[in-house]
Amino acid sequence: MRTIVRDLSKHIDETVTVCGWVNAVRAQRKIQFVIVRDDSGMVQTTLRRGQDEAMEALIDKLHDESAVRVTGRVVANEVVSLGGIEIVPERFEVLGAAEAPLPIDRNTGPEQRLDWRYLDLRLRPEQRQVLAVQSTVEQAMRDYVFSRGFVELHTPKLMGTASESGAEVFKLEYFDRAAYLAQSPQFYKQMAIAAGFEQVFEVGPVFRAEPSFTSRHSTEFTGVDIEFAWIDGVEDVMDLEEEMIAGALRRVEELHGDQIFETFSRKVKAPDVAMPRIRMDEAIELLRSQGWDPEGQRAELDPEGERRLSAHFLEQTGSEFVFVTHYPSSVRPFYHMRPEGDPDTTLSFDLLWNGLEITTGAQREHRYDVLCAQAEEKGMALEPLRQYLDAFRFGTPPHGGLGLGLGRFTMTLLGLESIRDTSFLFRGPNRLTP
Amino acid sequence: MRTIVRDLSKHIDETVTVCGWVNAVRAQRKIQFVIVRDDSGMVQTTLRRGQDEAMEALIDKLHDESAVRVTGRVVANEVVSLGGIEIVPERFEVLGAAEAPLPIDRNTGPEQRLDWRYLDLRLRPEQRQVLAVQSTVEQAMRDYVFSRGFVELHTPKLMGTASESGAEVFKLEYFDRAAYLAQSPQFYKQMAIAAGFEQVFEVGPVFRAEPSFTSRHSTEFTGVDIEFAWIDGVEDVMDLEEEMIAGALRRVEELHGDQIFETFSRKVKAPDVAMPRIRMDEAIELLRSQGWDPEGQRAELDPEGERRLSAHFLEQTGSEFVFVTHYPSSVRPFYHMRPEGDPDTTLSFDLLWNGLEITTGAQREHRYDVLCAQAEEKGMALEPLRQYLDAFRFGTPPHGGLGLGLGRFTMTLLGLESIRDTSFLFRGPNRLTP
Repeated sequence: MRTIVRDLSKHIDETVTVCGWVNAVRAQRKIQFVIVRDDSGMVQTTLRRGQDEAMEALIDKLHDESAVRVTGRVVANEVVSLGGIEIVPERFEVLGAAEAPLPIDRNTGPEQRLDWRYLDLRLRPEQRQVLAVQSTVEQAMRDYVFSRGFVELHTPKLMGTASESGAEVFKLEYFDRAAYLAQSPQFYKQMAIAAGFEQVFEVGPVFRAEPSFTSRHSTEFTGVDIEFAWIDGVEDVMDLEEEMIAGALRRVEELHGDQIFETFSRKVKAPDVAMPRIRMDEAIELLRSQGWDPEGQRAELDPEGERRLSAHFLEQTGSEFVFVTHYPSSVRPFYHMRPEGDPDTTLSFDLLWNGLEITTGAQREHRYDVLCAQAEEKGMALEPLRQYLDAFRFGTPPHGGLGLGLGRFTMTLLGLESIRDTSFLFRGPNRLTP
Repeated sequence: MRTIVRDLSKHIDETVTVCGWVNAVRAQRKIQFVIVRDDSGMVQTTLRRGQDEAMEALIDKLHDESAVRVTGRVVANEVVSLGGIEIVPERFEVLGAAEAPLPIDRNTGPEQRLDWRYLDLRLRPEQRQVLAVQSTVEQAMRDYVFSRGFVELHTPKLMGTASESGAEVFKLEYFDRAAYLAQSPQFYKQMAIAAGFEQVFEVGPVFRAEPSFTSRHSTEFTGVDIEFAWIDGVEDVMDLEEEMIAGALRRVEELHGDQIFETFSRKVKAPDVAMPRIRMDEAIELLRSQGWDPEGQRAELDPEGERRLSAHFLEQTGSEFVFVTHYPSSVRPFYHMRPEGDPDTTLSFDLLWNGLEITTGAQREHRYDVLCAQAEEKGMALEPLRQYLDAFRFGTPPHGGLGLGLGRFTMTLLGLESIRDTSFLFRGPNRLTP
């Protein structure tokens, strides 16, 4: 029966078994100290020389990061800096020996750390914490949509045609023909609406064949996708996201708040004000009045504009979040709905958090004839879209939804420098290992 | 503000708005009846002719399955068979018109129904129910592992080498080189253990390039994967699965039990006895004594043997589940641990439920030298495995885990004939659409 390190102080003068990694070995003339680390903390084991030759020899050969199991008595000793306790080992087993030296340490450069990502995660507990926080975020979002009656679906990642936008799609050999990897569950979650599901949710991998090397891009990432029917307008989608994010941040604050403050110097706090919403044209006007895009050439925000806009609203309203709405039709896909009598605009939004776009959402065009016309207007051939378009021929209700990048959310939440830190094993144009 | 059909009886003599699909139109000489269906039920709307010409004309042109929004007064009328209420419409809007006729109906053959899967799901609510139950199963499993402190990770689906078993792997073009789709998160979840995560969980897509056309196979399916460290033996893995499944079945019973009994004639019941465990050699002996494999040629169970064994234990113990343990090394992968001094056997198991294998699990070999030796013994080249093997060089604790096919679980739970009914959009060797 294993005792975790955090609980050892409840077992003074008892014999326990501890499992963990060797954090350090300090061999002195009269005593051997081994610091054993598990997820909950570290403990010192203390062996006086001359009492157990076999154990002494084993510890002399022990390398850092070996996986060990130690059985011994827990002793209170106020001179021990690790919690004032130590273990006097009766049995010391090396269950998984480590080679020495390790190929990386805490100071190795980023690419080589990615080469040995699992060791980097082992050596830097704060990196494992990123993924634990991300797991909490994801589950809190799920709990929120389930409380509203959503169903979680798994849409196919294998597609017969590269429909949405051929350029960024990975192609694969599929028996005697070609298949493509889904770059978003967009079309499929809309098919779920056509299928009579009123509210659907998915968390799954998304593949992008983009040769981008920025700190915000990867070729495979985890998308959180939501789509729901019978909406009255795109505001319903933003309302849902507002509540979902507030719920997720409350949960993170509760479960990880102190630890995050300690490790990342970030104070997690669920938004206590509504997230402001501003139309794209108004946002551009506002930013231009403050000196952005002086030549007046942009139809939408660039990353610099996004940062400035976020800073403005943080200062004016105290909100780290801002919805930018009504993107021009020219920069939005054909399936975004346009307001009645205003074909140059879409009923769409991005959500910015501290200057980073974490979500794109919209009300979708659900009327078959309008949808076809909008695709043609964009110069798209309808035949490759046939499977998708057909789903709108037999009675599809008004609906909308959003896609949220889980890694971008975590990156902003913890103030990380790169999306790579939010992936267990990052994938980029030059990176398919480990 | 929308009212769902199930709640209409609370709104007698009030004006409400109902959203749903046209289930049927019955135009009579003096009255037009439209049956509107939403997820919660069906309601009749009743319009007397001669009162609203525009609405009358609209209903005369209305096709089944159109998405409509109806505002009107709820009237108690005991002659109405649908719950004794009807709606007298004041406003009738067609939000998404349906073409007629529909390309399929409830009697169309299976392949054509898959061609129009979203319509099939719309027309057969029991098919949507399958996916709603599956969503509950998945979430209950997640809640169980989270209660034990697991972290959910998303492992890469893109791999640099076709390591585990080249034959069944899809290959894709990845910029200037090749990549492969993960056929299991096996290697990656073990890397998570090497990374210092003690308990990890994943639900995600799994890809198999197998040209199989059986009712149990697909090229893309949803896998539930678990791996955890510091186990004392493979029994720990079976214990976890037993509790996880019992928890999932309790949740399904609670949330869907009545509906499942009504639709699928299945009584859902969480196991109230321990799941029996039998060694493969003993299972074979037992079955041979009952006339199976009379020529004594098999080293493991075939599907017929699995069915017979399940039937035996159901009769003897009342358990629909049985763990078959200690598969021969010859039929298990190199990374399964073998018992001390018994190299022909593995510390592995399959879980059978009513004769169908739903899980494979094992304690893994975590010792680098033993792992390499076992791979070589299987005739595998070590170089393609290098990325995986390296994860065992720097101190990896004992660990084990399992993979469960979510669709197979749901199929058995509901007594479905084919795995296809458990996929939102099925993918097979001949099927990449819709």
